[in-house]
Amino acid sequence: MTTASKIPGVFRRPSTLKPSISWHSWMIGRPLASADAPHQTIGKLVGLAVFSSDALSSVAYGPQEIMFVLAAAGIGTLGLSLPVALAIVVLLSILTFSYEQTIHAYPGGGGAYIVARDNLGELPAQIAASALLTDYVLTVAVSISSGVAQIVSAFPDLFSYRVIIAVAMVMLIMIINLRGVKESGSIFAIPTYFFLGVTFFTVITGIIQYLTGSLELVANPPALETTVLQPLSILLILRAFANGTASVTGVEAISNGIPAFKEPRSRNAGITLLWMAGLLGSLLLGITFLAVHTGALPAESETVISQIARTIYGGRGLLYLAVISATTVILVMAANTAYADFPRLGALVASDGFLPRQLTFRGSRLVFSYGIISLGMISSLLIIIFQASVTSLIPLYAIGVFLSFSLSQAGMARRWWKSGHLKPGEELVEQGSTVRHDKGWLHKMIINGFGSFCTAVVTIVFAVTKFKDGAWVVVLLTPLLVIGFLVIHHHYKSLARQLSLTNYEPRSTIQRNRVIMPISGVHRGTLEALRFARTISNDITVVNISADPEEAQRLEAKWQQWGDGIRLVILDSPYRLMIEPLLDYLAEITKVRKPNEMITVVVPHFVPKHAWTNLLHTRTANLLRHALLHRDDIVIMEVPYQVK
Amino acid sequence: MTTASKIPGVFRRPSTLKPSISWHSWMIGRPLASADAPHQTIGKLVGLAVFSSDALSSVAYGPQEIMFVLAAAGIGTLGLSLPVALAIVVLLSILTFSYEQTIHAYPGGGGAYIVARDNLGELPAQIAASALLTDYVLTVAVSISSGVAQIVSAFPDLFSYRVIIAVAMVMLIMIINLRGVKESGSIFAIPTYFFLGVTFFTVITGIIQYLTGSLELVANPPALETTVLQPLSILLILRAFANGTASVTGVEAISNGIPAFKEPRSRNAGITLLWMAGLLGSLLLGITFLAVHTGALPAESETVISQIARTIYGGRGLLYLAVISATTVILVMAANTAYADFPRLGALVASDGFLPRQLTFRGSRLVFSYGIISLGMISSLLIIIFQASVTSLIPLYAIGVFLSFSLSQAGMARRWWKSGHLKPGEELVEQGSTVRHDKGWLHKMIINGFGSFCTAVVTIVFAVTKFKDGAWVVVLLTPLLVIGFLVIHHHYKSLARQLSLTNYEPRSTIQRNRVIMPISGVHRGTLEALRFARTISNDITVVNISADPEEAQRLEAKWQQWGDGIRLVILDSPYRLMIEPLLDYLAEITKVRKPNEMITVVVPHFVPKHAWTNLLHTRTANLLRHALLHRDDIVIMEVPYQVK
Repeated sequence: MTTASKIPGVFRRPSTLKPSISWHSWMIGRPLASADAPHQTIGKLVGLAVFSSDALSSVAYGPQEIMFVLAAAGIGTLGLSLPVALAIVVLLSILTFSYEQTIHAYPGGGGAYIVARDNLGELPAQIAASALLTDYVLTVAVSISSGVAQIVSAFPDLFSYRVIIAVAMVMLIMIINLRGVKESGSIFAIPTYFFLGVTFFTVITGIIQYLTGSLELVANPPALETTVLQPLSILLILRAFANGTASVTGVEAISNGIPAFKEPRSRNAGITLLWMAGLLGSLLLGITFLAVHTGALPAESETVISQIARTIYGGRGLLYLAVISATTVILVMAANTAYADFPRLGALVASDGFLPRQLTFRGSRLVFSYGIISLGMISSLLIIIFQASVTSLIPLYAIGVFLSFSLSQAGMARRWWKSGHLKPGEELVEQGSTVRHDKGWLHKMIINGFGSFCTAVVTIVFAVTKFKDGAWVVVLLTPLLVIGFLVIHHHYKSLARQLSLTNYEPRSTIQRNRVIMPISGVHRGTLEALRFARTISNDITVVNISADPEEAQRLEAKWQQWGDGIRLVILDSPYRLMIEPLLDYLAEITKVRKPNEMITVVVPHFVPKHAWTNLLHTRTANLLRHALLHRDDIVIMEVPYQVK
Repeated sequence: MTTASKIPGVFRRPSTLKPSISWHSWMIGRPLASADAPHQTIGKLVGLAVFSSDALSSVAYGPQEIMFVLAAAGIGTLGLSLPVALAIVVLLSILTFSYEQTIHAYPGGGGAYIVARDNLGELPAQIAASALLTDYVLTVAVSISSGVAQIVSAFPDLFSYRVIIAVAMVMLIMIINLRGVKESGSIFAIPTYFFLGVTFFTVITGIIQYLTGSLELVANPPALETTVLQPLSILLILRAFANGTASVTGVEAISNGIPAFKEPRSRNAGITLLWMAGLLGSLLLGITFLAVHTGALPAESETVISQIARTIYGGRGLLYLAVISATTVILVMAANTAYADFPRLGALVASDGFLPRQLTFRGSRLVFSYGIISLGMISSLLIIIFQASVTSLIPLYAIGVFLSFSLSQAGMARRWWKSGHLKPGEELVEQGSTVRHDKGWLHKMIINGFGSFCTAVVTIVFAVTKFKDGAWVVVLLTPLLVIGFLVIHHHYKSLARQLSLTNYEPRSTIQRNRVIMPISGVHRGTLEALRFARTISNDITVVNISADPEEAQRLEAKWQQWGDGIRLVILDSPYRLMIEPLLDYLAEITKVRKPNEMITVVVPHFVPKHAWTNLLHTRTANLLRHALLHRDDIVIMEVPYQVK
């Protein structure tokens, strides 16, 4: 089967090996060969469905979280929700224009990490990476918690099970992603368009009712949870604004996913971004408007969406359930988006050497299994800690996103500056894209610069106003993560340097191989090991560590019969130590060793058939191997001896 | 330093190695050499103190546990405690006469395990072993729980901390025993004689008060905890009796400890046994008598001892505190006895091959560390499960002891029968002692036979009457333990058979050594490993598992430069499996191997300086080694490559 390569002495052996079917094939599907990776592209309509669930789903919690803050100053101030929502829509437009430029500059995909790495350098890139990874974890936690909140609104009896339901959903999405989701599948379009259809229908119905004067107030609204009233202040309004920014966190998704679009990729992706921003903006305003005019109240026990829907449809009928289920499904899809983004970014950062390499391995289903599992575990933990409360999670959420927005836009601004200083026709090839001269560089630089400035301001507003509500966790965690990334990078770099063959001088050939073989007794296992040891050297010393002089004498006698004249050294161990006397003896031998001499420790190793029987043995072989691995220039030869 | 032995080729190397001082030297003391083992013998007075704490301390809970059962039929029936205690004293006398004979027959120590093994065979011996080991665990749990109950009686505020206090005491005794306790030390005599003095003084004072009519009733007795009244029945009385038998569980201690006595050992030990039985019997009766006549009530919140003492001494004064502290200390000493017995029996059973061999290892302080730690852990667990309640633990307690008593006495009876059928002067050497003709064999056989019968009856009474209170645990556990012992024994026997050199034919010398060396890349680590591999064979195949054709090509090119003409085989792994393709390749090679051919897999192994960096690597070397250990006749050579 083996075929020779062009290079003499090199052979290739094609594999006929199929992975065996095990319990996880049942759960995540049969293994896929690397060649099975799909290469499909999608149009704008499907693209909108695939990449906008994160953004669109945020209307389920955005308006409500604005109201939660304002409610602290009394029900009367809830009317301020509308201007705050308007401010957020303005922010959304700035971001959209800014990102539209990124999409055209990075047709290969322009996430914040790539843009920052190309234009700002290592440290800003790692800050963006840590902010984004944190954000993806929170996207899962917030979206699923909000999804469960919708379910609980419709079926209040489930309230006390919300944490379990949320964790179960996270696990389910994890398993689905371990199976591998065809992101390009048009199956994604159905729930997104169902959500858009149902939600717009509800908003329009509500507005017609308002205009015709038939819009009612929410019947039996949930009890207001804030009790201590605060005075209305600029700070309070800023905090409400900060909470609402959670609604625009999904804007980056499309710029990450440009390669999935049909050609002309950038153009298609750009148009999709504009559509998405338009839809998101109208829904945000529409829902906030209806919330204010139906007198909906923010609460953990029933979502604002649920209150609006049952008011407009006059109860919990079919249409109401359609709204709730569409909202829940889009939220689950948003979480699912993070399951695509987190492992992809993790793998990218890992391949740059800032995260464990394992994150770049594709599992049996061609997905980044380690990343998917990490995301599932960490977000479940967050849900458990915060008891699936969206309001508690929100203060941790948007800060990371806005930090990465700001870095990404700053990177873009820097890129336009570089572009403006290139001669026409000149090219600057970077890791993520190619910079060419652009006539409009100044105007584009101003747009991205303004975007960067606005998002930086939002980041700071957020960090300051929400600091003690939970933002401190992220403020503390981000630098720690960055330090972690740099430490990991240092390790990989130092390792690569030590392994590098640059200036490598092969050492002299080994002339002599001294074999040391520790034994615990003279038996078949020992003699078999000796048989192997004899093939590799003539210089063999068998060593026994003895805590009992009588036993040592019996051993000597047995060795006389079976030892075939090979040297046996008995090491006294008056303190009944099991491996230290051997290490001591080896140290002594190593001291007098010549440069072209090698020491091999042959360790006979019992391998019982049933693993539990390992408990009945001291497993000195393992202890010894572990200790020897750290000794310089000692080779360990393990001779397994299988016993039934 | 190394000196030659009489046998040619054998050398001895005396050790100069002192174990290093670590955190556990601080806790358990500096390591001791095997030669430091003490050899001291003790007289009768010290012997009584050393071996009787288990028996004597049981007066702290025995009478109370009798009363607990009787109280179920109402306070009126508590007067029956005295006849029940009398029955227990009768049982004690039978046991004493029976064990007195064992002591003379087994001057080397005659615990139930040894006697059963010599005279009844493997299975009864293992039943005795499992019963005794269970019993020692319970001795610790019951004694410490009772000790804590005394403390709590004096300081009721500590009631809610009783579990923590009990576990802390178990751990403290564990550490003391890991340090090593000189059992023969006369330091043991002080607390025992203090306890005897204080307790007899209290009992005598009480009886004088009774005779002079000045004995009062307990002031503010604790509330009676049983609420559902049961009719007085034979079953109830039997259950009370069963509970009380906990008081005679310590009788075997002296027959275990005979070798510690001064010569004439058996005579001294026998006399000590009689003294102990006399003291125990009088205290049992005395305390029960006073409990009845002061109207003490059994309760978790205050012990009967405490109620009697404060009644006799008119309050919680100095004398009261003396009684409580003496009782607590003797209970702690009883637990300490189990820390000597459990590891010793465990080591004995392990050296017979029925328990893990590790139990026979003496730790750095010459004690059986594994046994001591196991005892501490299991008894702490019991205390936590049963919330340090003596009353809940008692139903599990005496059944194992009586089972072992019965087996031991049956073994003795069988021994006298053998003795009677030997000719005078004839000797029968057994593992534990030597049997000689004895004229009085029939009379002695009857005494032991009667002892065995009585204890068997008690065992059955106990198992039946306390079954659903907790005895079922022991009834279930004992056969499971015995099965476990036999499975372990089977493993050791089968292993010994497989390793035995009887009929061993050395296999032919190995003629050819094929080396297979898996590499993940071409770097310094790989080339160093190759340097070692070349010393052991000329037939080397380097193997790379490749999931990425482009990477494979780069590797080929690098190999052309550095591979020195050595054969490289690239194994395709389309499913990205990491070790399976290699195992598959090895299987193919193994299939065509000749009998005198050996296969060595050389595994280059990174050893990072900091263990945490292992998380950043796949550690294929470990996975591979683990998989290879189970392949027949493949030798694993690990070449460690230390990186900083």
